Amino acid sequence: MLEKLKLEVYEANMALSRSGLVFGTFGNVSGIDRESGLVVIKPSGIEYSALRPEDMVVTDLNGNVVEGKYRPSSDTKTHVKIYSDMPSVGGICHTHSMYATSFAQSGRGISAYGTTHADYFDGEIPCTRRLTPKEIAGEYEYNTGAVIVETFKDRDPDSMRAVLVNSHGPFTWGKNAGESVQNSVYLEFVAQMALNTELLRSACATCVPMQNKLLRRHFDRKHGKNKYYGQG
Amino acid sequence: MLEKLKLEVYEANMALSRSGLVFGTFGNVSGIDRESGLVVIKPSGIEYSALRPEDMVVTDLNGNVVEGKYRPSSDTKTHVKIYSDMPSVGGICHTHSMYATSFAQSGRGISAYGTTHADYFDGEIPCTRRLTPKEIAGEYEYNTGAVIVETFKDRDPDSMRAVLVNSHGPFTWGKNAGESVQNSVYLEFVAQMALNTELLRSACATCVPMQNKLLRRHFDRKHGKNKYYGQG
Amino acid sequence: MLEKLKLEVYEANMALSRSGLVFGTFGNVSGIDRESGLVVIKPSGIEYSALRPEDMVVTDLNGNVVEGKYRPSSDTKTHVKIYSDMPSVGGICHTHSMYATSFAQSGRGISAYGTTHADYFDGEIPCTRRLTPKEIAGEYEYNTGAVIVETFKDRDPDSMRAVLVNSHGPFTWGKNAGESVQNSVYLEFVAQMALNTELLRSACATCVPMQNKLLRRHFDRKHGKNKYYGQG
Amino acid sequence: MLEKLKLEVYEANMALSRSGLVFGTFGNVSGIDRESGLVVIKPSGIEYSALRPEDMVVTDLNGNVVEGKYRPSSDTKTHVKIYSDMPSVGGICHTHSMYATSFAQSGRGISAYGTTHADYFDGEIPCTRRLTPKEIAGEYEYNTGAVIVETFKDRDPDSMRAVLVNSHGPFTWGKNAGESVQNSVYLEFVAQMALNTELLRSACATCVPMQNKLLRRHFDRKHGKNKYYGQG
Repeated sequence: MLEKLKLEVYEANMALSRSGLVFGTFGNVSGIDRESGLVVIKPSGIEYSALRPEDMVVTDLNGNVVEGKYRPSSDTKTHVKIYSDMPSVGGICHTHSMYATSFAQSGRGISAYGTTHADYFDGEIPCTRRLTPKEIAGEYEYNTGAVIVETFKDRDPDSMRAVLVNSHGPFTWGKNAGESVQNSVYLEFVAQMALNTELLRSACATCVPMQNKLLRRHFDRKHGKNKYYGQG
Repeated sequence: MLEKLKLEVYEANMALSRSGLVFGTFGNVSGIDRESGLVVIKPSGIEYSALRPEDMVVTDLNGNVVEGKYRPSSDTKTHVKIYSDMPSVGGICHTHSMYATSFAQSGRGISAYGTTHADYFDGEIPCTRRLTPKEIAGEYEYNTGAVIVETFKDRDPDSMRAVLVNSHGPFTWGKNAGESVQNSVYLEFVAQMALNTELLRSACATCVPMQNKLLRRHFDRKHGKNKYYGQG
Repeated sequence: MLEKLKLEVYEANMALSRSGLVFGTFGNVSGIDRESGLVVIKPSGIEYSALRPEDMVVTDLNGNVVEGKYRPSSDTKTHVKIYSDMPSVGGICHTHSMYATSFAQSGRGISAYGTTHADYFDGEIPCTRRLTPKEIAGEYEYNTGAVIVETFKDRDPDSMRAVLVNSHGPFTWGKNAGESVQNSVYLEFVAQMALNTELLRSACATCVPMQNKLLRRHFDRKHGKNKYYGQG
Repeated sequence: MLEKLKLEVYEANMALSRSGLVFGTFGNVSGIDRESGLVVIKPSGIEYSALRPEDMVVTDLNGNVVEGKYRPSSDTKTHVKIYSDMPSVGGICHTHSMYATSFAQSGRGISAYGTTHADYFDGEIPCTRRLTPKEIAGEYEYNTGAVIVETFKDRDPDSMRAVLVNSHGPFTWGKNAGESVQNSVYLEFVAQMALNTELLRSACATCVPMQNKLLRRHFDRKHGKNKYYGQG
């Protein structure tokens, strides 16, 4: 069943695996068939190199397995909660990519510092609140989805297609599984740039530059009238 | 028309794509034929892997397409504004490379901290002022070129071949398209080094080193008279 | 003797060499045969590319060579001390990987900042105290093992399978040699993420974002009703 | 003449080019034949990919070309000054490697923070004073060598085989050209680790870790009695 969607979700998982965002078996991509309300998702803890399209697991919107010989991703209930409450989402990607996860661990959203960010994300990429001890002890993965949905109460998931789960990591989405992976790639790039930007703003903006005479000497030995670098 | 220049600009775009400075379809290189005043530039939003020499777009100095089946880069009006006001420029490269863009996002120029910088750039690499809301709402890409030209009012574009557009990213230039790409590569290297330099100056310069006894023990077990590391 | 264990330890050393955690001939992996109390370990200072299964050295729990034509790793006495005092450990891996070693050099354990950490390590990854001058001057490598054991006086080595030796670097372990290497890989990833997390918390959390008008302009030129990026 | 030394210096330059420490045509390696007092060095500004053993240039200890169709490295007079004043040095390597150069640009030596450093360098790796305007205007490259020699007035170049030239970059040496390149590789690794160590010491050492309940939940879902990650 849903062979076309399985292939699509399989290919999105493999694209994620090639993207450099994945560490070990971390990360998972899913897609939804809105007509039947069925979700196709990566099985839990399987090496990407061993994955085949037919290994994808089909679940309903409660996360119950409908088809598949493997257990679905341990984050399945987070995915289905997002699908349930954000009807325009067609695919979801979850990673522990280095820089987006570092922001999640610092408990801060990613401020928009430049046009690279603005080309993909319509403002600050939000970070959820921390889960309560009760939410963690209870239906933890479902509650992770619920805190994402709560964070988007006043946001439009069609112009902000990413969220950071506090002390955990990013989820991104899109019209389909492939787009959700692309958005994880954009998010990671933007996150690394934001860290660098903040470091530059904190660093010694008034650091003393090099001696001007040394600057001129080096520039001129390569580009000046009497340059003597290279073979002339 | 301009087949030789198209090939040159195509090859410069491919060199940029191989340089590691490009993220997705970001980045574009152009070249100008000063005789005819025509500009050859990368088409907008085309994957580098799909690009062919004949896909390059020819525009006039107002950015109007003269030849080409594709739309030119969305930054075309920035390029033509630079060509119009800096008559010695033969090629222009625009990237969102990680470190140069991080400086642009922090709104700061790149100070000259050492001879690596001095070998290529004749002083601080300037960052433009922010655009005004009016400039953003109006002819935004043209105004991006205008603020670059304004920044070079008292600078020589032949010894400073790079600029950071505030909250956006770098533009570099050269005698031709290929040189403009090279200067983007130099800029990125120098930007990363400047960030590290500033971090080192802000960091605890007075950090306590390791115990001297441990230092001697390790050095001597590898290099001392009675060394016992390796196979003797 | 112990041919199967030698192959296992050889393969774990080669996996370490491929992991990107190794610099030069640094790093070594061992495994123990609990029945005979014999340890198999990498020879000292041999290039990974030249290593063969039969080069592995067999020692007893005092670090005395029982079989092998090479000297064992210079860190052998640290390994055997751990095996002696932590009976559930089956394999040990030592590296000078960039980020875990940077934490060791800073003399600090790695705080648990997020679920990536929690997926592998049951709390803060501890850093030992500094060795005393006397410990360094004496049986240095044995004392390195002893300070690790001391650090685990009130810890369970089965749920915390890593330690940082102060001013030195990490040791990790597992049920066998292969698992100990895996834990070094997890440790390094978690260490890099923790550094980034701390940088983000120290950095200017209140940095001013870009102008909202510029954000909207860029988002809309790519995604808005009147978008003009790409080929339409 | 000196064909064996030329091959050795050629191979050391190619090893440097493969090491990842080189940016563009930056970097140069030389070797000396102590019997004749002749130095073999890389030609200036030639791409590594085009280099052949017979392109190496032979100079005397004043930097005058004795044989070779190319101009020698623009840093030749620095090399020969070091050879003249440090009689045990057999090979010299100069790079603009990212992290060692960042330290040089910050005007600080590299403190010994751990045993990785101690395994190669017998204490703080020194940074020279800045050159005076007169030294820059005069025999600049010779004076660069002179300030290195001055820095080693009370140091032993056999146990400290590296120096940072202020606002410029590192020089390393060894018994021969190949060893000098190896020492540049060790230096760069140690420099990156020292930057990370200082960042960790400056960063918020008292950052609040994650919630303990979340930590336990994640550790236990992967490793606990009732684990439910993976395929069981």
